[in-house]
Amino acid sequence: MPSSPGAVVVDLKFERREIEAALEKAFPGRAVLQAADKDQDLSHAAYLVAWKPDPNLFRRAPNLKVLFSGGAGVDHFLAMPDLPDLPIVRFVDESLTTRMSEWVVLQCLSHLRQMPVYLKQQRNHHWRELAQPEAKDVTVGIMGLGVLGRDAAVKLKMMGFNVLGWSRTRKDLDGIRTFDASGLPDFLGECDILVGLLPLTDDTRGIFDRHVFASLRQEGALGGPVFVNAGRGGSQVEADLLAALQDGTLRGASLDVFSVEPLPEGSSFWGMENVVITPHAASASDVRALFRHVERQIGHFEDGKRLEHLVDRKAGY
Amino acid sequence: MPSSPGAVVVDLKFERREIEAALEKAFPGRAVLQAADKDQDLSHAAYLVAWKPDPNLFRRAPNLKVLFSGGAGVDHFLAMPDLPDLPIVRFVDESLTTRMSEWVVLQCLSHLRQMPVYLKQQRNHHWRELAQPEAKDVTVGIMGLGVLGRDAAVKLKMMGFNVLGWSRTRKDLDGIRTFDASGLPDFLGECDILVGLLPLTDDTRGIFDRHVFASLRQEGALGGPVFVNAGRGGSQVEADLLAALQDGTLRGASLDVFSVEPLPEGSSFWGMENVVITPHAASASDVRALFRHVERQIGHFEDGKRLEHLVDRKAGY
Ligand SMILES: NC(=O)c1ccc[n+]([C@@H]2O[C@H](COP(=O)([O-])OP(=O)(O)OC[C@H]3O[C@@H](n4cnc5c(N)ncnc54)[C@H](OP(=O)(O)O)[C@@H]3O)[C@@H](O)[C@H]2O)c1
Ligand SMILES: NC(=O)c1ccc[n+]([C@@H]2O[C@H](COP(=O)([O-])OP(=O)(O)OC[C@H]3O[C@@H](n4cnc5c(N)ncnc54)[C@H](OP(=O)(O)O)[C@@H]3O)[C@@H](O)[C@H]2O)c1
Repeated sequence: MPSSPGAVVVDLKFERREIEAALEKAFPGRAVLQAADKDQDLSHAAYLVAWKPDPNLFRRAPNLKVLFSGGAGVDHFLAMPDLPDLPIVRFVDESLTTRMSEWVVLQCLSHLRQMPVYLKQQRNHHWRELAQPEAKDVTVGIMGLGVLGRDAAVKLKMMGFNVLGWSRTRKDLDGIRTFDASGLPDFLGECDILVGLLPLTDDTRGIFDRHVFASLRQEGALGGPVFVNAGRGGSQVEADLLAALQDGTLRGASLDVFSVEPLPEGSSFWGMENVVITPHAASASDVRALFRHVERQIGHFEDGKRLEHLVDRKAGY
Repeated sequence: MPSSPGAVVVDLKFERREIEAALEKAFPGRAVLQAADKDQDLSHAAYLVAWKPDPNLFRRAPNLKVLFSGGAGVDHFLAMPDLPDLPIVRFVDESLTTRMSEWVVLQCLSHLRQMPVYLKQQRNHHWRELAQPEAKDVTVGIMGLGVLGRDAAVKLKMMGFNVLGWSRTRKDLDGIRTFDASGLPDFLGECDILVGLLPLTDDTRGIFDRHVFASLRQEGALGGPVFVNAGRGGSQVEADLLAALQDGTLRGASLDVFSVEPLPEGSSFWGMENVVITPHAASASDVRALFRHVERQIGHFEDGKRLEHLVDRKAGY
C-alpha cells in the first residue's frame, strides 16, 4: 500500500470550471489529476473518473485499480478499445434518479393530458375542451426496472397510472405487475405508453422496432400508443419509429435520446407535432454528486469492503 | 314521508346524451326529471342536481329538500337569485381530485423542466441542454388546502418539490409547512411556483394581484416566479397578471381559468411564450361519478344521517 492515498484522474465532459469548483471540496488529501493536461504524469494514479475515456489514457495510467463511469450508462465506456480488465463502477445517485423520474412523469402526464393538442389550440387562440381519460384508464409499461425504472414506476403509480414493468429478471414491486424477458409480448399488448429506460447493450440495440410499436395496445384510452425513451438512442430503430409516427401506429412520442446526438438539424423528428424532443437532458449528472459517490466507493475499496454498482461486463451494464 | 322515493331534477351542462347514458344506471326506482323539459311538472321533486340552475326552476320546484352542485365550486350556484334556504351539497369525488392533481403536477413539472423553452428550441431545430435545477431546489406554495389542494400538495412533495400550503385555517400535513390566513406575506416570500386552488368568494375575488406577484421569491432556482391557477378566474386580477408577465415580475404561468370564459380570441394571454393555457379543463366532472355521489348523499339524508360536503353559505364555499 502506498504511503500517500491513491491519486484520482478525472476525464469528464463537464465544463472545466464546473469540475474545478466541485473539486475544491472533493477528495481531501488526495492528488487529483486532469487527464486533459497532456504533460501530466498519470503513472501513479489509482482511480479514474471518466465519461468516455481517451484511449491514450490507459497507456498513460497503467496502475489504475478501479474505473468510475461519470454516467449511469456505461455503453461509451465499455466500447473503449484497450479497456483494462478492472472493476468498473457506474454512477448511481439519488439526484440522478429523482431528475429522471421528473422527466418521465412529466412526459407521461403531457401525453395523458393531451398537451400537444392543447398547445396547438393555444397557438390558434382556440378554446375547446377535449374528452379526457384519467390516469387509471391508461397503462404505462416500463422497459428496464433498474435504479431509474423502479423509481419512475412508483411515481407513475402514485400519480394514478396503471403501471407495468419489464426486465431481464422479474422484479417484485408493490402494486405493479411485472414481466421477465420471456413475457415481452403479453407486456407490450397491454401498454398505452411504453417507457424505455434500458441500458444500451448487444441485447437492447434496436430493441424498439416496428414489431414492438405494432404490438402496443391500439384501442386504449389515449386513442393510440405513445413511446417515451430516455435510455439510449441506439435502442430505437429510428426509421421504424418515424414510420410508426407517420402511419399512426404510434400516436405520439417523447424522445430524449437519439442514435446520433445532437439530433441533426434536418431530422424529421423536430417538426412532428405529437413528438416532444429534449436534448439528452432527462437527467443530468451533477458533478458534485458524482465526486461524492466516487469518494464513498474509494472509501469502501480502501477499507476492503465491496464496491457497489459494479458493471457486469458480459451483460454490458 | 311520500310513499314513492323523492324525485330528482337534473339541470346540468353536460351533453344530453351523456346525461341519459349515465342515468340508465343511476337512481334506480326513483323518478328523474329533466329541467330542460319546460312542460315537465317538477312540483314533487325533492332533490336538484344542477351546475348553474335556471332561475325559474325554484318556482317550478317549490318542494326541494336538498340542492346538489354539479361542480366542486359553488360560486355560480350561490350567485343565483331566489336561491332557497336549503342545504347545498357540493361535488367531491376521487376522480375529480386525481384529475386536478394530474394537471397541477404536470404544470409544475413543465415549468421546472423548462418545457416552454425546450419546445421553442424544438421549433427551431435547436439542440441545447439548459442548466437544470431539481425539484427539491424549487418551492411550490399552494393557496387553498381543501380537498384538491391537499392531494396536489402530497403528490408535488412526492415528486421531490419543497411544498408549502396556505389556507384560512391552518392545516397539518406531513412534511409540508403550512400557514394560516395571517401568514400570507411569509408564505409568498418563499414561493417559486404559486398554485391557486381557491374557491371564488367575496374574500378571494381578485386576491392574485400585483402585490401578491411582487411578493413571490425573485431569486429562486427557476430564475423568477411562476403562477399556476386552476381555482377560479375571478380570483386573478388579469391586468396585473398580464403586466407581471410582461415586465418579468412573473417568469411564466399556467392558467386553466379566466375571469371571462371562453378566453376571448383577442386576449394577449394566448400568444405569451411562457404561458400555458387550458380551457377550464384541469379537472372535468364525470357525470356518472356525480350521480353516484348524489345517490350516496340522498341515501344518507333519507336514513337521517348527516349530509357530507355541505356548503357554508356565509363563507361562500
Ligand atoms: N437520458 C438520460 O439523461 C439518462 C440519464 C441516466 C441514465 N440513462 C440511461 O438509463 C439506463 C438505465 O439506468 P439504470 O440506472 O436504471 O440502469 P440499471 O440499474 O442497470 O437497470 C437496467 C435495467 O434494464 C434491464 N435490462 C438490461 N438489459 C436487458 C435486456 N436485455 N432485457 C431486459 N431487461 C434488460 C435490467 O434488467 P435486470 O434488472 O434483470 O438486470 C434492469 O432492470 C442507463 O443505462 C442509461 O443508458 C439515461
Ligand atoms: N379548474 C377546474 O377544472 C376546477 C375543478 C374543480 C374545482 N375547481 C376549483 O377549485 C376550488 C377548490 O376546490 P376544493 O374542493 O379543494 O375546495 P374546498 O375543499 O372547499 O377547499 C377550499 C380551500 O380554500 C381555502 N380558503 C377558502 N377561502 C379562503 C380565504 N379567504 N383565505 C384563505 N383560504 C381560503 C379553504 O380554507 P379552510 O381549509 O380553512 O376552509 C380550503 O383550504 C373550487 O372551489 C373550484 O372553484 C376548479
